[in-house]
Amino acid sequence: MKFKIDINCDLGESYGAFKIGNDEKVMPHITSANIACGFHAGDPVTIAHTAGLAKKYHVAIGAHPGYPDVLGFGRREIQLTSEEIRDYTIYQISALHGFASTIGTSLQHVKLHGALYNSAAKDEETSIAVVEAVQALNPNLIIFAPPKSVLANIADKAGLRVAYEFFADRAYNPDGSLVSRRRSDALIQEKRKVVERVIKVVKEQRVIAINGYAIDIGQIHTICVHGDTSNAVELTETLKRELTKADIEVTPVENFL
Amino acid sequence: MKFKIDINCDLGESYGAFKIGNDEKVMPHITSANIACGFHAGDPVTIAHTAGLAKKYHVAIGAHPGYPDVLGFGRREIQLTSEEIRDYTIYQISALHGFASTIGTSLQHVKLHGALYNSAAKDEETSIAVVEAVQALNPNLIIFAPPKSVLANIADKAGLRVAYEFFADRAYNPDGSLVSRRRSDALIQEKRKVVERVIKVVKEQRVIAINGYAIDIGQIHTICVHGDTSNAVELTETLKRELTKADIEVTPVENFL
Amino acid sequence: MKFKIDINCDLGESYGAFKIGNDEKVMPHITSANIACGFHAGDPVTIAHTAGLAKKYHVAIGAHPGYPDVLGFGRREIQLTSEEIRDYTIYQISALHGFASTIGTSLQHVKLHGALYNSAAKDEETSIAVVEAVQALNPNLIIFAPPKSVLANIADKAGLRVAYEFFADRAYNPDGSLVSRRRSDALIQEKRKVVERVIKVVKEQRVIAINGYAIDIGQIHTICVHGDTSNAVELTETLKRELTKADIEVTPVENFL
Amino acid sequence: MKFKIDINCDLGESYGAFKIGNDEKVMPHITSANIACGFHAGDPVTIAHTAGLAKKYHVAIGAHPGYPDVLGFGRREIQLTSEEIRDYTIYQISALHGFASTIGTSLQHVKLHGALYNSAAKDEETSIAVVEAVQALNPNLIIFAPPKSVLANIADKAGLRVAYEFFADRAYNPDGSLVSRRRSDALIQEKRKVVERVIKVVKEQRVIAINGYAIDIGQIHTICVHGDTSNAVELTETLKRELTKADIEVTPVENFL
Repeated sequence: MKFKIDINCDLGESYGAFKIGNDEKVMPHITSANIACGFHAGDPVTIAHTAGLAKKYHVAIGAHPGYPDVLGFGRREIQLTSEEIRDYTIYQISALHGFASTIGTSLQHVKLHGALYNSAAKDEETSIAVVEAVQALNPNLIIFAPPKSVLANIADKAGLRVAYEFFADRAYNPDGSLVSRRRSDALIQEKRKVVERVIKVVKEQRVIAINGYAIDIGQIHTICVHGDTSNAVELTETLKRELTKADIEVTPVENFL
Repeated sequence: MKFKIDINCDLGESYGAFKIGNDEKVMPHITSANIACGFHAGDPVTIAHTAGLAKKYHVAIGAHPGYPDVLGFGRREIQLTSEEIRDYTIYQISALHGFASTIGTSLQHVKLHGALYNSAAKDEETSIAVVEAVQALNPNLIIFAPPKSVLANIADKAGLRVAYEFFADRAYNPDGSLVSRRRSDALIQEKRKVVERVIKVVKEQRVIAINGYAIDIGQIHTICVHGDTSNAVELTETLKRELTKADIEVTPVENFL
Repeated sequence: MKFKIDINCDLGESYGAFKIGNDEKVMPHITSANIACGFHAGDPVTIAHTAGLAKKYHVAIGAHPGYPDVLGFGRREIQLTSEEIRDYTIYQISALHGFASTIGTSLQHVKLHGALYNSAAKDEETSIAVVEAVQALNPNLIIFAPPKSVLANIADKAGLRVAYEFFADRAYNPDGSLVSRRRSDALIQEKRKVVERVIKVVKEQRVIAINGYAIDIGQIHTICVHGDTSNAVELTETLKRELTKADIEVTPVENFL
Repeated sequence: MKFKIDINCDLGESYGAFKIGNDEKVMPHITSANIACGFHAGDPVTIAHTAGLAKKYHVAIGAHPGYPDVLGFGRREIQLTSEEIRDYTIYQISALHGFASTIGTSLQHVKLHGALYNSAAKDEETSIAVVEAVQALNPNLIIFAPPKSVLANIADKAGLRVAYEFFADRAYNPDGSLVSRRRSDALIQEKRKVVERVIKVVKEQRVIAINGYAIDIGQIHTICVHGDTSNAVELTETLKRELTKADIEVTPVENFL
């Protein structure tokens, strides 16, 4: 049996004249694109362009909803009610879905952005609201979530498919959580090391934590790479090539979940 | 043969804590609701609520896209490119469509808002962009437009269904255009007069212009009433009742176009 | 010796076509206006109009900065950095100050809005950032804050003048905090009762808490009234009249602090 | 007698996580900074940072107000009323002035941004509104405007000081207007040519138009350089050095107007 993995990346995060990321260069090397939907980034013209680009490279499209906060890029938690979270999520997924439909495709998944991702990972009320939004719109959508997170559990119980996500270039704590970005060793920048870690995660379901010990992280379906770091394109290209060499099929998660 | 007419109204124009209109009271007396989509007014929670209200009263739902300008309430023209107009329109219709789908219904029509409505009525480039958006998303959507407007012509040529719109309480110039709101006689406030005019338009396709002469305005499919004037609810209720008395069936435009 | 008290109200909270409050009717009966600065409400045209109205009625002008969240009307906490809070506060106070200067007046005070007010009342980091902003701009500005709040203490230590605020129509807990708005008895709606409470607070520095026992609340300098409730105008008018009758001088806080 | 000239550049145009320009690198080589004020770009934290940077390099600070349109980066004309233009301008200048005051400095000038700059250059109503805003706030502020523009004339008649502006790297039409950016020859990219043109403009008040003929452009007080083109830093550095070599003193416009 061959191993299979998905590589996802946040894209379409420009906002009008404000450009972020290297969408055109990253797209050929990933299999799932999380496209910003206009609340934290991503205007309609950018969405249309990014969705077109994804289709061109046979990359599966997912919605990347965030808090309504362009100024804060969706990285600041906002105390929303359940109703607000549900309706903001429905709005954003629907807007993106429309663009996908105009090019004859549809959405594969939903991955929350930034502070909303972090909030749902640990907060039940937020997760329930997001899951309700997805169920109301399209229960075939796959939820991207950290393994063992509150969102993963709630989505799973609700009968949604959940893709467990691993961050390619982020260090992990012994409890399976991410090392805070404020620490200097939070990011793994050596390409070779990133590749090794991902292969280990896929094949052994284990990662070497920051303290040097291996931890069981469970099955991982999708690897998150960053599109806006200086070596993003090179790292992503390398990762895809090396995974393939290691007899791991890199393919959108909908093909094996 | 019985006459048929649709009554439409702009609704869902609140924005968070900022409340506009009497949606709950107007809804029972109209047949088509133009729901703001978030760009000039209408946040996701308001959209969800308004769509639900429309369904409850068997009112057909339409998208009401506007310029991206909450501060200006979509009443200020913004010089957008064709690409921006098309993609902003796709975005807004899609967002609303999502909410409609969560309650098991779909969209009947698209009516542009404010400055965008006025711009499309006379500008070819704007109209083409809007028509492209609608065709790309769903060519079954009906376009609401003034009779003989540029938008009406372009939508018609493109094969879209067009509902010609008459404004119940606005005075008309001899050339069929609306009397500017800056004039004191632009608004017709007497209920009886509004009703008489609408009946005449529906049955004779004629309206008495501001100069006292009757003009041919052609077939009208939908009557626009305002939801935010002081006597909006009473006027709308009366209009529906009197039209019915006059043997005119008041029903969503999709039933007879 | 005569007692003195200030009456303050949040005003200028309209946003373009979205109208909130009865500014014109409330203004004659208050002595300090907290004017929204554009982040949670209040656009430049509204600010100019409200500042002009305040001057006309000899009402002292204060800045009413809030979180950058028109959609949420500043009522949702947003996790900002200290730098963001400080700079957002500088920005908002400065913008309002400019309008005050164009009509030959200046600012008396700063009162935070909504979730930012609540956050500063209990959070040290938020309070320090706000105090830094005020000190950097104009250390003569008076800070409005709840008695014994974190903000009051930090502003006081920093050498700023602090006006302790009492809410005219809100019930208080035995510990001096406000009864949550979610409770049905949070609002005191009987006019006579509101007046009696305010007179007691001013003359005896005591309030009857929700449990029936009087608590010492310390000296109060300013009474907050609401401008957007149904009986706001009447209540404010009555309050001012009755306080004057009770030999309490109603005057802007800068006159006696 | 020595020639004197000012070099100005648009700076502080980042917006939260969305970064634009090379402010830190351009600042040392200019004498006037036009700082975005938050309506088309520039958030409070960016403003504070940019103003501090200007002070560090002894660069004069100016307000750079634009249309309220972050999504369009202020490049799209919006049909505003005179009252809106005046109050939006007051708001933006005031906000920036506050930050300048916190670091012990003040504003030298006002330069409109993008579509608002273009609109005021040819439209009387817009220019009057802007001039009213400046007069109401601080009649010592210098207005940057194209020579012979409507704004220049109206500001001059109103008694404001006007600095005539020349665009270092833009080709000019024989009538003194700028060659449209849509043309491939609109931008002059050769460094040496840019320098030669600027020296000619300063010393001879003439520019070689796109048709090869020299035109009289009148006295120029300030040269606009762009901060966001690929060779912006190098060009600006070279320009300052070569002007100095050519016996032209590069200094903020307030020193010689």
